[in-house]
Amino acid sequence: MKSSRISRRRALAAGTAGIVGAALPASARQNPDTTKVQGPPGREVGARSPFEKPVRTAFSPARTATFTPLQDLDGIITPSDLHFERHHGGVPAVDPQQYSLLIHGMVERPTIFTLAELKRFPGRSMIRFIECSGNGGRAYRLTTPTAELTPQQTDGLTSTSEWTGVPLATLLREVGASPKARWLLAEGMDAAVMTRSVPIEMANDDALIAYGQNGEALRPEQGYPVRLMLPGVEGNASVKWLRRIEVADQPFMTREETSKYTDPLPDGTARMFSLVMDAKSLITEPSYPDKLEGHGWLEVRGLAWSGRGRITRVEVSTDGGKSWQNATLDEPVLPKCHTRFRLPWQWNGGEAVLMSRATDETGYVQPTTAELMKVRGPNTQYHFNNIRAWQVGADGVVRLAGGAA
Amino acid sequence: MKSSRISRRRALAAGTAGIVGAALPASARQNPDTTKVQGPPGREVGARSPFEKPVRTAFSPARTATFTPLQDLDGIITPSDLHFERHHGGVPAVDPQQYSLLIHGMVERPTIFTLAELKRFPGRSMIRFIECSGNGGRAYRLTTPTAELTPQQTDGLTSTSEWTGVPLATLLREVGASPKARWLLAEGMDAAVMTRSVPIEMANDDALIAYGQNGEALRPEQGYPVRLMLPGVEGNASVKWLRRIEVADQPFMTREETSKYTDPLPDGTARMFSLVMDAKSLITEPSYPDKLEGHGWLEVRGLAWSGRGRITRVEVSTDGGKSWQNATLDEPVLPKCHTRFRLPWQWNGGEAVLMSRATDETGYVQPTTAELMKVRGPNTQYHFNNIRAWQVGADGVVRLAGGAA
Repeated sequence: MKSSRISRRRALAAGTAGIVGAALPASARQNPDTTKVQGPPGREVGARSPFEKPVRTAFSPARTATFTPLQDLDGIITPSDLHFERHHGGVPAVDPQQYSLLIHGMVERPTIFTLAELKRFPGRSMIRFIECSGNGGRAYRLTTPTAELTPQQTDGLTSTSEWTGVPLATLLREVGASPKARWLLAEGMDAAVMTRSVPIEMANDDALIAYGQNGEALRPEQGYPVRLMLPGVEGNASVKWLRRIEVADQPFMTREETSKYTDPLPDGTARMFSLVMDAKSLITEPSYPDKLEGHGWLEVRGLAWSGRGRITRVEVSTDGGKSWQNATLDEPVLPKCHTRFRLPWQWNGGEAVLMSRATDETGYVQPTTAELMKVRGPNTQYHFNNIRAWQVGADGVVRLAGGAA
Repeated sequence: MKSSRISRRRALAAGTAGIVGAALPASARQNPDTTKVQGPPGREVGARSPFEKPVRTAFSPARTATFTPLQDLDGIITPSDLHFERHHGGVPAVDPQQYSLLIHGMVERPTIFTLAELKRFPGRSMIRFIECSGNGGRAYRLTTPTAELTPQQTDGLTSTSEWTGVPLATLLREVGASPKARWLLAEGMDAAVMTRSVPIEMANDDALIAYGQNGEALRPEQGYPVRLMLPGVEGNASVKWLRRIEVADQPFMTREETSKYTDPLPDGTARMFSLVMDAKSLITEPSYPDKLEGHGWLEVRGLAWSGRGRITRVEVSTDGGKSWQNATLDEPVLPKCHTRFRLPWQWNGGEAVLMSRATDETGYVQPTTAELMKVRGPNTQYHFNNIRAWQVGADGVVRLAGGAA
């Protein structure tokens, strides 16, 4: 990063004539001169420039979770091949011709749907985030003043795609779900036979039986050929490789909601079915491993999202929370969707602590680490939407700052 | 495609108990049973299912234009590796470290910007389409009653991405563009040294100097590392691999605006700088090569877009234009962006002609082929936004219908 006084500094150094003269051989700075060599034709399927190598990282060699490189991305759409993924039994290979979805239980007409049958129903596309309920645990538990952790490493288990499918409500009408139904079970065909209970009102709200992601078929790691998509809800409940939905009048209490995905509280009780993801935000630029170079203006950028609706405000602090300024939000600002925020900031070489704080349309404000810790305690396993902080050193080095910030 | 009376027909055939019984071994229909085999872990970069093989097609072996497979896609986002591409000298390989953009001419401070400098300015992301001005020529000129052409083959030179960059207006302020400036030249660093003149008001409206596409860096075929992005404007003017912008008080009359990209009219004159893409729509499902199977309800789906703003209405006809019904539009409906429309339709085995007609927020209505032909004549080369028609045979076979439809 250079000084913001780009043109004035350069103009002082070179003068107008000098700049124009220096500019003429600009293309010659390319090696080889791209204007003198016919390039290759367009390919059947494109690929990244060899200079761009984003990757999903993982904690462990087993790679049961891989993380989106948030610090490498701008805007809100996550390229499908960089969408985070979390599985409990690996990624199954499913033949779409053999695929079927059973909906049964408290319904008038238990039905098996093929993929072609699902696609024939009136569909809907929507741009929505999915976040893993465990996303952010490393930042929440940070005990050192700072850490060399990227946005990807702390919070890369959130991504946004355009999802296409048939509203689950349509299928529940089609099979004649009982008015007494209160819950449903969603079951995957992966080796974990992943199962979660979902309240019927979520199913009848904006849930999709999704077969599309960013225009094309779902990617294997996101549930090909069909997943449940519950906007705003912790990712594990949007069961991938979906093979069965059972309608009932009570939750099923699967192992995923007894041994896991329940939040222990300091008083010894636990939050069960804490499904909705609360409002959260994260600065992605600058962040570790950036090193600011050159004093002057730059842009602080990040993502904000809420499982309860639209983001209405993102505030940014550059002094560790003493003062806050409203960031601008890129359009479109969609419900239950990543929202890109931006704020110009003049860095003059001193130390700084950068923070962001999201507010959603329900009025909910993203809590500080101390506030969240007080309610949930240090040992909670899920839903880490506390404010993130980045410490900027006088040398320009940026590091994740702990809860003390 | 099967009957819409899926559940009732199946229920009659099997009865409730039979269906539940039949459903139990559903997973066994997978070969191998995916619930019994641990799947592979998540990859650093994902890939499509081996059952999905979308490709960009081309007219000619030289592949100077490759087409997005519109009939294979749903929603509005085009996966970056399937975004259409058109080049005039191949796809150059550009080292981003060597990249620079010169802005000069009628400016106070001629300036060279590196990529890092461009990224430091306040940015903006927006979801917008790009369409090639020649898109749709094959459908316009169709002389046979029907043709076996896909949406990709007739109109695949349009795609939608989330584009990120710095507003060109910001850079023009930075360099001190003269108040007397009226036009600018955009020049690429490809082997064609692609050049187009752009009115200054477009530059000061919503134009971006774009470095991002669907969250990540631009793909090489869309101009890596930097392109001009002029929302709503014919694609060639959004010069890719952008190396130079020259500000002036008149257009530059480059070869691209004299030998090409000018529309001859029947009276011997020509439309010059016909830059804005008018409202257009296209049914993508059903379309060639679909063959409808099973009578009953299905969903007609397609895309609509306008270079002048938002789509406000899409009407669908199933009787060749005698009667029309309003389609529903998926949210978000964004300006200068593909919009997905949907309409349920009951096909009972007869012949039908499916058409769609878009209206944008200026009140402009997509013209029929006859209406457009009357104004532009048969030999016009660009801007083919006339209504498309698909003929459905009594046998369910779908073919592109000519202008007579």
